[in-house]
Amino acid sequence: ITSKLPQLGTTIFTTMSALAAEVGAINLSQGFPDYDCSPKLIELVNQAMKDGHNQYAPMAGVKALRLAIASKTKKLYDAYYDIDTEITITAGGTQAIFTAITAIVHPNDEVIVFEPAFDCYAPAIKLMGGVVKSLELEPSNDYRIDWAMVKKLITNRTRLIILNSPHNPTATILHQDDIDELSAIVKTQDILILSDEVYEHLIYDGETHHSMAMYPELRERSFIIASFGKLLHATGWKIGYCLAPAYLMTEFKKVHQYLVFSVSSAVQQGIAQYLKDEDTYLNLPSFFQQKRDHFRNGLAKTKFELLPSSGSYFQSVKYGHLTDEADTEFALRLTREAGVACIPTSVFYTRGTDHKVLRFCFAKKQETLDDAVNRLLDFK
Amino acid sequence: ITSKLPQLGTTIFTTMSALAAEVGAINLSQGFPDYDCSPKLIELVNQAMKDGHNQYAPMAGVKALRLAIASKTKKLYDAYYDIDTEITITAGGTQAIFTAITAIVHPNDEVIVFEPAFDCYAPAIKLMGGVVKSLELEPSNDYRIDWAMVKKLITNRTRLIILNSPHNPTATILHQDDIDELSAIVKTQDILILSDEVYEHLIYDGETHHSMAMYPELRERSFIIASFGKLLHATGWKIGYCLAPAYLMTEFKKVHQYLVFSVSSAVQQGIAQYLKDEDTYLNLPSFFQQKRDHFRNGLAKTKFELLPSSGSYFQSVKYGHLTDEADTEFALRLTREAGVACIPTSVFYTRGTDHKVLRFCFAKKQETLDDAVNRLLDFK
Ligand SMILES: CSCCC(=O)C(=O)O
Ligand SMILES: CSCCC(=O)C(=O)O
Repeated sequence: ITSKLPQLGTTIFTTMSALAAEVGAINLSQGFPDYDCSPKLIELVNQAMKDGHNQYAPMAGVKALRLAIASKTKKLYDAYYDIDTEITITAGGTQAIFTAITAIVHPNDEVIVFEPAFDCYAPAIKLMGGVVKSLELEPSNDYRIDWAMVKKLITNRTRLIILNSPHNPTATILHQDDIDELSAIVKTQDILILSDEVYEHLIYDGETHHSMAMYPELRERSFIIASFGKLLHATGWKIGYCLAPAYLMTEFKKVHQYLVFSVSSAVQQGIAQYLKDEDTYLNLPSFFQQKRDHFRNGLAKTKFELLPSSGSYFQSVKYGHLTDEADTEFALRLTREAGVACIPTSVFYTRGTDHKVLRFCFAKKQETLDDAVNRLLDFK
Repeated sequence: ITSKLPQLGTTIFTTMSALAAEVGAINLSQGFPDYDCSPKLIELVNQAMKDGHNQYAPMAGVKALRLAIASKTKKLYDAYYDIDTEITITAGGTQAIFTAITAIVHPNDEVIVFEPAFDCYAPAIKLMGGVVKSLELEPSNDYRIDWAMVKKLITNRTRLIILNSPHNPTATILHQDDIDELSAIVKTQDILILSDEVYEHLIYDGETHHSMAMYPELRERSFIIASFGKLLHATGWKIGYCLAPAYLMTEFKKVHQYLVFSVSSAVQQGIAQYLKDEDTYLNLPSFFQQKRDHFRNGLAKTKFELLPSSGSYFQSVKYGHLTDEADTEFALRLTREAGVACIPTSVFYTRGTDHKVLRFCFAKKQETLDDAVNRLLDFK
């Protein structure tokens, strides 16, 4: 049979997590916490199951959770999203991204993607017959977006720009001048925005997250993607959501209802109860900043060169001054020989561009981070 | 913006469940139980969360659950599926169906669909640029498939035939002669099968479910879709799975990993433990047959004409001898005036063909079924 995605093999996340398990390495590759989510949250989900929330949730999601999301969005971004027409709860951020792309990318539509990019954007675009127009960002320039280059990429077929702030894998964030440039560009044409904001709460040094929800002229053309996995330290629950103005959400829901229909009723109920305490998300930046700072202090003693980490739970390092090895080779060797697994950044570039940068996830217990740093210090 | 699915409005399930709630009708429309799933199962999921199964499951699913699925498939259908290459756990049967269609339907490929058909097949095919070739089945002929007509529909663009046995909404099942006819047809050409078997355990009067897994020449070209929602009386958990030979599963997984990546670790762990007791599925036919028989006995006293129900948890009735009203009108009136919500079968035909047939779900407590029958008896 003819593959619709012929180039794809096993994802790097599966490969590295499997290798880490096999060789007993500390797994700082795939992004997930090694500590547990709140026992109170687990008990709320358990209670929801016991209370009988075990049949189909409404297609857009449990009302209590849509209310909690609307209230969080109002509080953080001073933006009002209507719970009936502008919020849909999804099987994780990934499903939300796939659904938005499926809903609006027509064959031959062009989509602007900044690389390095999380690996799920391009396959979804290709499956819809869309064309990925990628712009490579570089560590030498702090992975800043060159908006003049973006303008050059735009044609009358440009349908969508995909943004991701805080950014996976580079840990950069969008700044006010990026927002201004973006606004100027999308206003000129009928271009939509897919804004992957799954790390919205993981932002450091007192910076604010520039959500598309904050800017009326961006918000009116944006799908915003969020993730409870990141907010609740429970990546395995696979619950996220999408915010979009009603005319876009109508199209999103047409796909969502036939792609998955709905997601776990009990988990939605439990999360809705849990979010009543706003500290659950208000405290996240400081919770993760403490981990970031601790990890950076440790890494600073190693031979690696630290890149900035302004958001997300990732920290990248450069190693080109140590060896000429390709980043994939080096990541495998580091896993086997140092016993620390990471992700080589070249996998996030379509063309495999190798800037000799490795990504570590620091959503880990302090002792895990210490242990990893010690192993890296011992590595010759 | 240009909708990719312009004709779609709100699904009938959302409409009828909302109306039932609004007017206080007994909801026999959307298919889900009104009794609860096993407390033991809930406790197993709770324990899995407490044991820390809260981060990403492997992309294909938790190994213990893939083992349990392989063992159930061996036991029921004497078919061996490899846990590493032929089983993927999904966010419900719907996601599995969408994923299989996305993986293999190319633009202009033709897909044969028998109508009435569950509502998620056609939108997925259309989103992939495929062409739905539908064949209408009729109650006057017990909704049997006319295989001579199927042969006439086949062209060199036919990529896929979608089957669904036990069938939603008609409650019919495939018989050995259907299997023989199907085998003869698909062997001649490179045609694949999507076999929606989500009601595999709900089959009555001692009949066997003819799974594609049982027939090597069908199995080698089939995606088989199954649902834990139906097996566990927990439709709201949204966990299902897909079985397929490795060459097809490879393509399925390429889409699955970017569409949702994985599904709830804790729920998968809990189900895996629970399935160790084979009675959980071996007892399902008699559990539901008792409900079916009870409901049919009650309905037989009403003015409606009963159609057969050989599988699934649906019972259809004809009402054409009572009124000329269109089935959608009549279903709405029955909900409002009799206080019993059902699904009009015309919604499952692309062209809205109205044979004046209503579908009721009998996955309900005995007292709910009695109450519904009494209301229907009172209805003038
Ligand atoms: C869905 S597995 C990948 C997890 C993740 O977001 C990452 O490690 O980048
Ligand atoms: C996904 S809601 C529809 C439930 C169902 O299978 C049905 O009622 O036919």
